[in-house]
Amino acid sequence: MSRAQRQMNLNVFLMNAGHHEAAWRRPDTEPHHITDIKYFQRLAQTAENAKFDSLFLADGLAVSPNIKHGAFIGLEPFTLLSALAAVTERIGLIGTVSTTYNEPFHVARKFASLDHISKGRAGWNIVTSGSEFEAYNFNRDTHLEHGKRYARAREFLQVATSLWDSWEDDAIVIDRESGTFADSRKVRPIHHTGDTFKVRGPLNVPRPPQGYPVLVQAGSSEDGKEFAAQYAEAIFTAQQTLADGQQFYSDVKSRLVKYGRDPDQLKILPGICPIIGATESEAKEKEQEINELTVPAYGLQQLSNMLGVELYTYPLDGPLPELPDIDKINGNKSRFQLVADLAKREQLTIRQLIHKLAGARGHRVFAGTALQVADQLEEWFTLGAGDGFNVMPPYLPGGLEEFAQQVVPELQRRGLFRTEYSGSTLREHYGLRRPVNSFTAAAVLDG
Amino acid sequence: MSRAQRQMNLNVFLMNAGHHEAAWRRPDTEPHHITDIKYFQRLAQTAENAKFDSLFLADGLAVSPNIKHGAFIGLEPFTLLSALAAVTERIGLIGTVSTTYNEPFHVARKFASLDHISKGRAGWNIVTSGSEFEAYNFNRDTHLEHGKRYARAREFLQVATSLWDSWEDDAIVIDRESGTFADSRKVRPIHHTGDTFKVRGPLNVPRPPQGYPVLVQAGSSEDGKEFAAQYAEAIFTAQQTLADGQQFYSDVKSRLVKYGRDPDQLKILPGICPIIGATESEAKEKEQEINELTVPAYGLQQLSNMLGVELYTYPLDGPLPELPDIDKINGNKSRFQLVADLAKREQLTIRQLIHKLAGARGHRVFAGTALQVADQLEEWFTLGAGDGFNVMPPYLPGGLEEFAQQVVPELQRRGLFRTEYSGSTLREHYGLRRPVNSFTAAAVLDG
Repeated sequence: MSRAQRQMNLNVFLMNAGHHEAAWRRPDTEPHHITDIKYFQRLAQTAENAKFDSLFLADGLAVSPNIKHGAFIGLEPFTLLSALAAVTERIGLIGTVSTTYNEPFHVARKFASLDHISKGRAGWNIVTSGSEFEAYNFNRDTHLEHGKRYARAREFLQVATSLWDSWEDDAIVIDRESGTFADSRKVRPIHHTGDTFKVRGPLNVPRPPQGYPVLVQAGSSEDGKEFAAQYAEAIFTAQQTLADGQQFYSDVKSRLVKYGRDPDQLKILPGICPIIGATESEAKEKEQEINELTVPAYGLQQLSNMLGVELYTYPLDGPLPELPDIDKINGNKSRFQLVADLAKREQLTIRQLIHKLAGARGHRVFAGTALQVADQLEEWFTLGAGDGFNVMPPYLPGGLEEFAQQVVPELQRRGLFRTEYSGSTLREHYGLRRPVNSFTAAAVLDG
Repeated sequence: MSRAQRQMNLNVFLMNAGHHEAAWRRPDTEPHHITDIKYFQRLAQTAENAKFDSLFLADGLAVSPNIKHGAFIGLEPFTLLSALAAVTERIGLIGTVSTTYNEPFHVARKFASLDHISKGRAGWNIVTSGSEFEAYNFNRDTHLEHGKRYARAREFLQVATSLWDSWEDDAIVIDRESGTFADSRKVRPIHHTGDTFKVRGPLNVPRPPQGYPVLVQAGSSEDGKEFAAQYAEAIFTAQQTLADGQQFYSDVKSRLVKYGRDPDQLKILPGICPIIGATESEAKEKEQEINELTVPAYGLQQLSNMLGVELYTYPLDGPLPELPDIDKINGNKSRFQLVADLAKREQLTIRQLIHKLAGARGHRVFAGTALQVADQLEEWFTLGAGDGFNVMPPYLPGGLEEFAQQVVPELQRRGLFRTEYSGSTLREHYGLRRPVNSFTAAAVLDG
């Protein structure tokens, strides 16, 4: 293995009992621990021992419409990340926070705090919130239209990055003799006045160790890709086939130039839900077994929401009915397209489609041996479909432990993944530059 | 010491380098560690070893107007509390969150999460935000009028408590066999529609271990006292004299009856900033020394803000000018009154008043030996001015360590304070009942 060899980035996406919607029904999962910090601490430490770049916690601002059969409620991710920051040392900590139902001052401040607490390991997965149910919890009868959500997100990012820059890195001087705590010339109000926000600043937290937390994005719609090209430093994306993954990769990377950005400064991480067996047939059986634990009423509800059409009256073993036009979808547009394409390409019945989606809600599920999983990752990585992967264990803690113990060492043997952390911040793990302070950059230009 | 003897509750109010505004200029403080979790972890563990009921982190949503001379910026308290939850075992964790610049769904969810993570140790200090500077960071040119802030706070509390009750305690069943994760009859939308908020619910976090976090309040105005009588389970209050403390205590306790509440279910905790010396004269010298470290420009700014009048042109060694009427004050009304009374009662010059306030911004500063501090606490406690105290170390970590090592053992010897935790939740430490779920209570009444 050569030191100069390009290496992949690995993020682990943690989700309660696991990503598979029936994971909690397996006897080896721990759905009774989903509000227990010790459980997540163990998962985080497993990932850190395997040298993962980061762990990620997703979020939604409403209960899923079918709580009877689903284990997708639990701790608020930001609160959980901060607790995990105190009991981990190196792994990056990425959390989803919505720009639609928050204020930029709060969000900038919380991420700055998390970045200080973790000594430079914070990442923000920026989402615009796709569900009507979330709107109902925030004084609205409907949720914002897709394009407006992205316009708000862009302004939100302008405010947040300015707030992080409102303290220069060396603004705190602590000169006890003269009584000077901070050099007030290096702390600036931002005076932002835009279409949506009016924020004076400065922030009341010093500039984060990383300058900004790593900015992550997960929408793959047109709006989403353009937003990512402008702001994101990592993308979580759902891609079912190598060809789709390659197409997405080159599409997004090519958009960075017009924002003056280096394509290498945006890491593309397709999701993969690996179901690992000692043999290929054992893995396929495991997949079959867990799929059979799904509750059709739950899967139908999820699918109906994704596709914007009520599927309850259609036969489970028949095909999908005609779907609405994508312009009518005001939730996750790219996921709608992916699911529609998948059903068509593989000519799936509704039940088959539910099973296909049960593992990771549209992300790629792959069942095989650890070597086969490593082969898949190597193929996508070397053939231009990803800079790394968003690993989504189907069940926890077992699915993560299997990946850590069997796939990671194989990737390390191939020289595709680190055997030790070389940096201490999330930016260093991902090979991302620390952002220059926009105020000092402007001052240099003015001077 | 009899087991039945009434014991006091002790909260430690942590503030960066300490409460005294010049604390950071003392060589034994650590202002360079105010964004370091290890520093706060050490403070929390010192307090926990001394069996404090709780620690408290205050908050404001803007930088103080004089950052040059003040060390009152740093980590966002909620983020810090969650990190501390992961590295402490027993001590309660109380944080300020404003009802004026937040949404109840977020706040209810975060405190529920913190309560789960800490296994029942969360407390919420409910504030309405008193400064114009905070408004400027949240899309406003002025901040809400005092009465309107409290009306919003009351509705905010209705929504938050309903959200915590939206999951019955035993709603999660995890029946793997039947595929039933939650009993959906025990999870309810709240359908709140009020003057300010429209929130459907349910929350996406199960009911907190404590039912609700302990509800704390710190405003001592008429609006504040009435709000406290209705909702609060603990009050942090600034009282300069025993007589004022007694008057406040009986005033607030007497207001609980009309809300059907037991006066014992609201703990009143006057603030005390203890400056401890081996002898009384050593303590007084220490007080004098730290007061001389204050920067007049900083104190003048603070005092001008508190009193709603610009003091810069008045001689430091002369008296205060005439003050505005209290009705004109739209910030902290009770603090205005306290400072005005203090200046008048003790006939203080502006400089003397700045020194009086430097220790704890209007809370009582007491310089003496550890025995004298214990005497003071015993006196206020036994003569009906407090159920316990909000201990505000003037400088950190030393001021907390001195209190923990010298005053706490003396209180324990007198049978006034626990020698070991008897409970595990913050409610148990304070002797507060766990709230009944309002939905099940209503169902019982209906049935």
